[in-house]
Amino acid sequence: MIAKLTIERKRDGREIPAAELREFVAAYTRGEVPDYQMSAFAMAVLLKGMTDAETAALTDAMEHSGETVDWSDCPLPTADKHSTGGVGDKLSFIVQPLAAACGLAVPSLTGRGLGHTGGTADKLESIPGYNASLSLAEFKKVVGEVGVSMTVQTAEIAPADKKLYALRDVTGTVPSIPLITASILSKKLAEGAGTLVFDVKCGRGAFMKTRPEAEDLAAHLVAGAKAAGRKAAAIVNSMDEPTGRAVGNALEVKEALDVLAGDPDSPNDVVELSVALAAKMVELAAGVPSEEALAMCSARLADGSALRRFEAMVAAQGGDLAAFRALDFEAAFAADVRAEKSGRIASVDALGIAEAALRLGAGRGAVGDEIDPMAGVVLVKRSGDEVRKGDVLCRLYGSRDKCGEETVMCALRSYEVES
Amino acid sequence: MIAKLTIERKRDGREIPAAELREFVAAYTRGEVPDYQMSAFAMAVLLKGMTDAETAALTDAMEHSGETVDWSDCPLPTADKHSTGGVGDKLSFIVQPLAAACGLAVPSLTGRGLGHTGGTADKLESIPGYNASLSLAEFKKVVGEVGVSMTVQTAEIAPADKKLYALRDVTGTVPSIPLITASILSKKLAEGAGTLVFDVKCGRGAFMKTRPEAEDLAAHLVAGAKAAGRKAAAIVNSMDEPTGRAVGNALEVKEALDVLAGDPDSPNDVVELSVALAAKMVELAAGVPSEEALAMCSARLADGSALRRFEAMVAAQGGDLAAFRALDFEAAFAADVRAEKSGRIASVDALGIAEAALRLGAGRGAVGDEIDPMAGVVLVKRSGDEVRKGDVLCRLYGSRDKCGEETVMCALRSYEVES
Repeated sequence: MIAKLTIERKRDGREIPAAELREFVAAYTRGEVPDYQMSAFAMAVLLKGMTDAETAALTDAMEHSGETVDWSDCPLPTADKHSTGGVGDKLSFIVQPLAAACGLAVPSLTGRGLGHTGGTADKLESIPGYNASLSLAEFKKVVGEVGVSMTVQTAEIAPADKKLYALRDVTGTVPSIPLITASILSKKLAEGAGTLVFDVKCGRGAFMKTRPEAEDLAAHLVAGAKAAGRKAAAIVNSMDEPTGRAVGNALEVKEALDVLAGDPDSPNDVVELSVALAAKMVELAAGVPSEEALAMCSARLADGSALRRFEAMVAAQGGDLAAFRALDFEAAFAADVRAEKSGRIASVDALGIAEAALRLGAGRGAVGDEIDPMAGVVLVKRSGDEVRKGDVLCRLYGSRDKCGEETVMCALRSYEVES
Repeated sequence: MIAKLTIERKRDGREIPAAELREFVAAYTRGEVPDYQMSAFAMAVLLKGMTDAETAALTDAMEHSGETVDWSDCPLPTADKHSTGGVGDKLSFIVQPLAAACGLAVPSLTGRGLGHTGGTADKLESIPGYNASLSLAEFKKVVGEVGVSMTVQTAEIAPADKKLYALRDVTGTVPSIPLITASILSKKLAEGAGTLVFDVKCGRGAFMKTRPEAEDLAAHLVAGAKAAGRKAAAIVNSMDEPTGRAVGNALEVKEALDVLAGDPDSPNDVVELSVALAAKMVELAAGVPSEEALAMCSARLADGSALRRFEAMVAAQGGDLAAFRALDFEAAFAADVRAEKSGRIASVDALGIAEAALRLGAGRGAVGDEIDPMAGVVLVKRSGDEVRKGDVLCRLYGSRDKCGEETVMCALRSYEVES
């Protein structure tokens, strides 16, 4: 295998045979293909594209660059949901336990965030004692006992993706559908679930800015998962505005707990999307008709079954929900953002709110930054609400020294008020 | 300067401001932009192109990544010739001394080869004692005393190009007109000659396979040199067949010496092209009308002036031409390649002959490989010649263990004989 020839083939727009791609990725994983060759290759892929066969081979090569999890001894149908990520996206804390409550086994390897807030694992770690760094053996044990486990993707899973993802981030080679597809799928395929449901976000607060781009990615993810022998579906969801009211880490877990507890003030968008995603998992994994799956998920959410699964998972992974519930959010309160005029809220810019959350300490600007689990934004008012000048639009949480004029303005400017 | 943003700008087909390109190249030279970012950038340049302004800025940045030579104290007009490289290209050993014999100062920084034979410097080093690794001070001294010097581009000259050239070689980012232009020009501009004449080769044995590509590169080189305030011209020459009869290192120097000595058997193509290139240098650098420059160069070649310049240069750089002339070429003889049928030679494939030379040890397969100075091929028959079955087509030189069946077949297949 001569790496240069593989690069040149892609550069010249020729199709790369599957065996060659596999060897290229394997050599990269072993450190024999250096980063400077892989980054040139990634740029060629970004600019020249890949055929579906190439994307499948790349995915397969990355999936098999490390360990894959085997659930053949699991008596339940296995399923997982993946989100391409958005602002205030706490759906995993509802969807995954809900699917488990409907009789699925839900192994969910997740990530840390380099976005405006932490990733799913960071958010869970705002629960005192929660261990989001299980070994693969512990992960399998929790899934077996509770039906659902969420932990960080271990070093053994898709190491090629781990290397390539970090490289793409600094070489301008992130926005490529084949590379994104292979990155997402390789991890999810290695995780081993028989059914995969993708929540693909589009809009201002998402990675994919337009619906056609998101639909393209969704189609690739579903096709790739099916090609690998899994059941798969995708739902494309708008991410122009934050999902729910809370944007942060502990703040999002708290809102998810409220939804799981059947709080009547739960934001509709969170409830509806959670039920839709969990129902799609149940439909595909257990062969339950669509309407029936939706009804089952609504019932299991309403009757507290999903909450009990979440509680059991947290307990099994060492977390103390009582301690979490006792967290003093008021002590973390930093400032209120108030309306400057009266009128109707026309929109709330997800990206602006996310930036405010990042400024407050909810996310990492760079790898290794510390996250403030209590930091974030809670939207008191949302699109469509009427406000009067001086009303609180949103509340900011975090250390007060990070809550200067710019942070407040960032949140304020996110609100478009039509008088 | 954030390197990733520069990469993304090029990836997205937007023009990069000159100051940003300069800072990008400077940071790369300092090692602050790592190879994996530069290779992604190079691939983006290859696939998206560069405007003339960008190419000029890149060239300028690479030229000024190191030292530039100042000839303002030189009483003679300065000029140099650059060739994009071909098989059997020994023209530098004739053109540069000939231009010096016509009253120009010819500072010629040259390279080692990673091709089928060594580069100009490697070939000169087949002369016992020749020092092709002068310091810049020694280089200036030889030019001042003899009128011409040929030595390897020192580490101080265009270090960014040195790094980038090695990186492009292994990342599939060589065939890009803007990158080739910047690479060639940055070195030649840093060398400081006031006039630059480019010998751009096209065809099977050249880097540019087609005439339009070669003409495109020629136009870019001339425009770039002029933009940098130099006089410049380019001649596009076919390189389907080897230049002259000798392909190797010592073999090529020997053929050049024969031409300089006025050997009546000198190959016409070598003589004519050498005179044309030297005349173009004289015309531009000294303002001599074209016809007059051609006549002057023919005369100075015929009267031995050019030979005396070459001899003086070799002596000034420690070389022993008497020892070179005493080399035992017959001892290095390995095999004859004979015609398998009678007829007229329709073509001699430059690339096939070059491969035979490489197999015989005349070039480097990889950086650091040793070159056998005596190895190579001498074409006894050339295009248009009539042959009878069993006639010697060419003679192979080098160690006999490298002259197996495959090497002989490689040379034999290069000859197309029409019966």
